[in-house]
Amino acid sequence: MPTPNPTVAFVGVGRMGANMARRLHEKAFHVTAVFDAHRPLAEALAAELGCAAPDKLRAVSESADTILTVVTDDAAMRRIYSIGGSPDGDALLTAEGDVQNKLFINCATVSPRIHLEVEAAVVGRGGFVLEACMASSIPQARDGTLYLMCAGEERAFQRAEPVLRALGSTVRYLGRSGNAAKVKALVNMVMNINTAGLAEGLGLGAALGLDLTMLREVFAETGAGSRVLQTDGEDMQNRAHDCYFSAAHAAKDSGIALALAERAGLNLPLAAATKAQYDRMVAAGFGELDKSGIAELTFPGRGRSAGG
Amino acid sequence: MPTPNPTVAFVGVGRMGANMARRLHEKAFHVTAVFDAHRPLAEALAAELGCAAPDKLRAVSESADTILTVVTDDAAMRRIYSIGGSPDGDALLTAEGDVQNKLFINCATVSPRIHLEVEAAVVGRGGFVLEACMASSIPQARDGTLYLMCAGEERAFQRAEPVLRALGSTVRYLGRSGNAAKVKALVNMVMNINTAGLAEGLGLGAALGLDLTMLREVFAETGAGSRVLQTDGEDMQNRAHDCYFSAAHAAKDSGIALALAERAGLNLPLAAATKAQYDRMVAAGFGELDKSGIAELTFPGRGRSAGG
Repeated sequence: MPTPNPTVAFVGVGRMGANMARRLHEKAFHVTAVFDAHRPLAEALAAELGCAAPDKLRAVSESADTILTVVTDDAAMRRIYSIGGSPDGDALLTAEGDVQNKLFINCATVSPRIHLEVEAAVVGRGGFVLEACMASSIPQARDGTLYLMCAGEERAFQRAEPVLRALGSTVRYLGRSGNAAKVKALVNMVMNINTAGLAEGLGLGAALGLDLTMLREVFAETGAGSRVLQTDGEDMQNRAHDCYFSAAHAAKDSGIALALAERAGLNLPLAAATKAQYDRMVAAGFGELDKSGIAELTFPGRGRSAGG
Repeated sequence: MPTPNPTVAFVGVGRMGANMARRLHEKAFHVTAVFDAHRPLAEALAAELGCAAPDKLRAVSESADTILTVVTDDAAMRRIYSIGGSPDGDALLTAEGDVQNKLFINCATVSPRIHLEVEAAVVGRGGFVLEACMASSIPQARDGTLYLMCAGEERAFQRAEPVLRALGSTVRYLGRSGNAAKVKALVNMVMNINTAGLAEGLGLGAALGLDLTMLREVFAETGAGSRVLQTDGEDMQNRAHDCYFSAAHAAKDSGIALALAERAGLNLPLAAATKAQYDRMVAAGFGELDKSGIAELTFPGRGRSAGG
């Protein structure tokens, strides 16, 4: 007799992945196993949720109907799926492993072409695969209010829907594999540009002696208004850069978008200037500040004292 | 017996100034005179409103209690107020002219220090002066729904209020002279950055074969959302660049902000990259397109064919 919800396992249980696992556990999904390259993370979460923390990826894919991956970058995706590597090493997909009818949902922000490579590998072994990029952050993962941009075969999307609806308040299907990563890269590219631009506007406002609370109000009522003004404006003013979306992530995502632009032969000077700013933050050792920390580069008198 | 509304006169009756004059006329203000460096504009509007079109600025200030100026740049402001020039030439303020108790409302987007220079000159002759920068465009001028950012002496603001309330749906008092120009420069700087960034996001989306209507919807629901997405996104997609706020104006306003940043010793790479894009538009002959026309620089296959 089938369980009412599919069994689920996780690969990558940093703060995002762990909160998604907690959320599914709470919504009566059976979380069978969690895995992380940093083992203590997996062991702590396994103890919390009462599940396994196997030391082999193969054991993760064997343990559940649906495997969610939330890894950091293209290289990690290739490694866990054994793409371009040895087929005999430990991976979710192995030469002899059976992934018939299993569903893989990949939530990391990685290059669009990685999703196509993973799709080819999984579908070739009889499995289902969906990309589900997230345009939200850690609190939304815990609350099941993620914004999920999904792409892949429609049958994979349909099968994934119960899990997706438990994780997200908005679940959008954007077409074929790779599209969600493209849209996510564009969302973050534009978001990062707006963030860097807002930091310049507020920084110059501070230099001119203006009341920044008044300035933010005027921005909100005029053509300078933006979502990042709502989410990051006050934090920039108050130097409250606890991390929701790190500067290092912003630099990485801007890099994905710029690589896509380069292949398309497009010149995007704003995106390039924004990446250079986030790269400066990372180089100065502020990569783990929130993206709002870019204000530390533009406000008068902050400069290298950033981090407060 | 005083009239219920002050008499008003205008200097600078391009599309903004002319619409503001029409609006005040409609709201039962007596428009006494209109002036423009391009005389046919003034003559046509004078015929429409049944007022004078004197060929001397002195006659404009003599004709009304309140004089509104809507000129193009710092040089024009200096010229009409005879600042730094010959005191004997024709100007609103002249050596022998009496501006006792007259109110001057300056609506052009000019450098903050110009407002301080004008204030010193007007107040020194017994008059009142207010800056009233507009963060809106031509249709709002006609409808009396401008967003007005005002600065100057509080008594000048109070005296100006009946006129301001007839012109604007939002009237904000931002403190001492020059503050409104500073805030306006910052609003436009951030707006222009967001516009240039949006053009890059949609342009790259087009290059990647994404459905731009879908992409704009996702932007609106995520961290990429902004006011310019609402006002300019669809126009960028459809190449609808009829002018509300010209690229040439965007270049000028970005220049004002960058000059302020330079004096403050701030490095603002996003603002600089944005100005360079608008300067490219102007150099390519697209300066009179709307600011949304910046998409012509970033969408694949548009390039020099812009203007459609």
